Amino acid sequence: MSIINLSKQVALGIDIGGTNTKYGLVNHRGEILEKGILKTEDFPLVENFIEALYQKIRPLLDKHCSQKQLDGIGIGAPNANYYKGTIEQATNLHWKGIVPFAELMREKFGVPCTMTNDANAAALGEMMFGAARGMKDFIMITLGTGVGSGIVANGQLIYGHDGFAGELGHTVVKPGGRKHWSTGLEGTLESYASATGIAITAKKMRAEFPHSELNKYPEETISSKVVYQCAENGDPTAIEVFRYTGQKLGEALANFVMFSSPEAILLFGGVIKAGDFILKPTKLHMERNLLAIFRDKVKLVFSELNEADAAILGASALVWEK
Amino acid sequence: MSIINLSKQVALGIDIGGTNTKYGLVNHRGEILEKGILKTEDFPLVENFIEALYQKIRPLLDKHCSQKQLDGIGIGAPNANYYKGTIEQATNLHWKGIVPFAELMREKFGVPCTMTNDANAAALGEMMFGAARGMKDFIMITLGTGVGSGIVANGQLIYGHDGFAGELGHTVVKPGGRKHWSTGLEGTLESYASATGIAITAKKMRAEFPHSELNKYPEETISSKVVYQCAENGDPTAIEVFRYTGQKLGEALANFVMFSSPEAILLFGGVIKAGDFILKPTKLHMERNLLAIFRDKVKLVFSELNEADAAILGASALVWEK
Repeated sequence: MSIINLSKQVALGIDIGGTNTKYGLVNHRGEILEKGILKTEDFPLVENFIEALYQKIRPLLDKHCSQKQLDGIGIGAPNANYYKGTIEQATNLHWKGIVPFAELMREKFGVPCTMTNDANAAALGEMMFGAARGMKDFIMITLGTGVGSGIVANGQLIYGHDGFAGELGHTVVKPGGRKHWSTGLEGTLESYASATGIAITAKKMRAEFPHSELNKYPEETISSKVVYQCAENGDPTAIEVFRYTGQKLGEALANFVMFSSPEAILLFGGVIKAGDFILKPTKLHMERNLLAIFRDKVKLVFSELNEADAAILGASALVWEK
Repeated sequence: MSIINLSKQVALGIDIGGTNTKYGLVNHRGEILEKGILKTEDFPLVENFIEALYQKIRPLLDKHCSQKQLDGIGIGAPNANYYKGTIEQATNLHWKGIVPFAELMREKFGVPCTMTNDANAAALGEMMFGAARGMKDFIMITLGTGVGSGIVANGQLIYGHDGFAGELGHTVVKPGGRKHWSTGLEGTLESYASATGIAITAKKMRAEFPHSELNKYPEETISSKVVYQCAENGDPTAIEVFRYTGQKLGEALANFVMFSSPEAILLFGGVIKAGDFILKPTKLHMERNLLAIFRDKVKLVFSELNEADAAILGASALVWEK
């Protein structure tokens, strides 16, 4: 009887993003039983957000499991602190300062709540259900609006002394380079390899090449998606945008490899839709900057998880990680 | 009786460097009972080196312990692989290719033998007997002829997938910068922050400033020690050499902090004799390149261990680490 109950245990996985929050009920096999979405930006007050989330999720819990069967809640969120269960100074969220998010959730839902930053959650999801199954040492890089990362070494997520480890998007790849729109740091990876950074690069490069197809689009519509479309159409400037982005990313990855010597680096997020346009230069410049003992050893692969589900799976994996 | 025997257990710690090999018998309290030195470079053949080492160490073992009381041998060596017990493609040693060093030692001495790279061994030594006692997350940077590193996260040394993790001296701090004399990589930390790199910087800078005290020394005598002497005498060019070095080191440290979020970074090795001449600019440029959540949190400290003993203690700590 207890075995049957165990197989019915579920976790609630929640991925909080600046625009949307996705949630899902997940079982041990990584199957999403139910899922849903809530607009994060509609709630300037965190208490209202949690109340709305509860109203959405309560019926799903009632349908799928007893209170006993819900093992806990796992949350991935920007600037979330694993040790303290807080969201701290997240520039993409309305809620300012230090928010005791895990505690508020625990009070509302009555079950344990664990949280970490969104990229760490994605890394856990890959380790439990995705391309990193069986790996003890890998790095996950999420290339979306921003650049996030999750680092696994010796089979464990690296949280660091204060719970904030793995902010590889903010490492400097070009000292004195492009100033970041929000952190103010100069020449960081996120300024080049995020979708936002790619759009900046594209706007600069199209100004230099008047014949580029990129010039057919109004300034405000230039995005990494548009650059990809132009690259697909053979536009040399658009292809160069990805080549340059891949160079910066590859140089950064080489440094990461010499830090933790991972078996693989997993790339994830909207930017990887550019496929070989970005993967090939990334690989080239990673290898070129590696010490001989690391060359031709590190797998550079795209995530296997469905992007829509990965964040939920990753967050739910937090519940069972311990 | 068994307790008394346990307290008499000893480990043999060996630190293999390009020029010299230091060894010592160490007890559980980190006391070095005996120590000695052997010239590594006198032995082009590894078998002869091990035989000579055995001849030197055998009498010490006979004097201090029975075979039973020797728990094992721990070795720190350049390019040593923790998993395989090999020394691989070490540019500073005569022994080329892949040397099964741990196995050769085990055959000769008849006890278990564990090895890792010299900087990892130093990090272990700091964790067991030095400034990192009680820390679970720290990074050790050795600034000597080269730049080495040992990374501890979640209370464990990070060895990586292949046993080669922690080569932070070879991370790029200035893309397209100074070409490394041995690896051929461009703009790596070692090219700037090692004693060798500091001498290169000094030679360049003194050419620009004819009145610098550095110009009183013949070219071949310019070393980080000489630069320190001139800085102590108030020579602005020598002070600028350390400021520049500290800037490059600080920029690199910021990236390392955003990787593993350590409680402290420990600096070790001959270069730290320059004291505040290097520490102050390093700290300044580390903080300047950190994301807000990491600022004013990471301790930047010099090693507490006697340099002559640290390597032996660190190597011996390998024996008891498991």
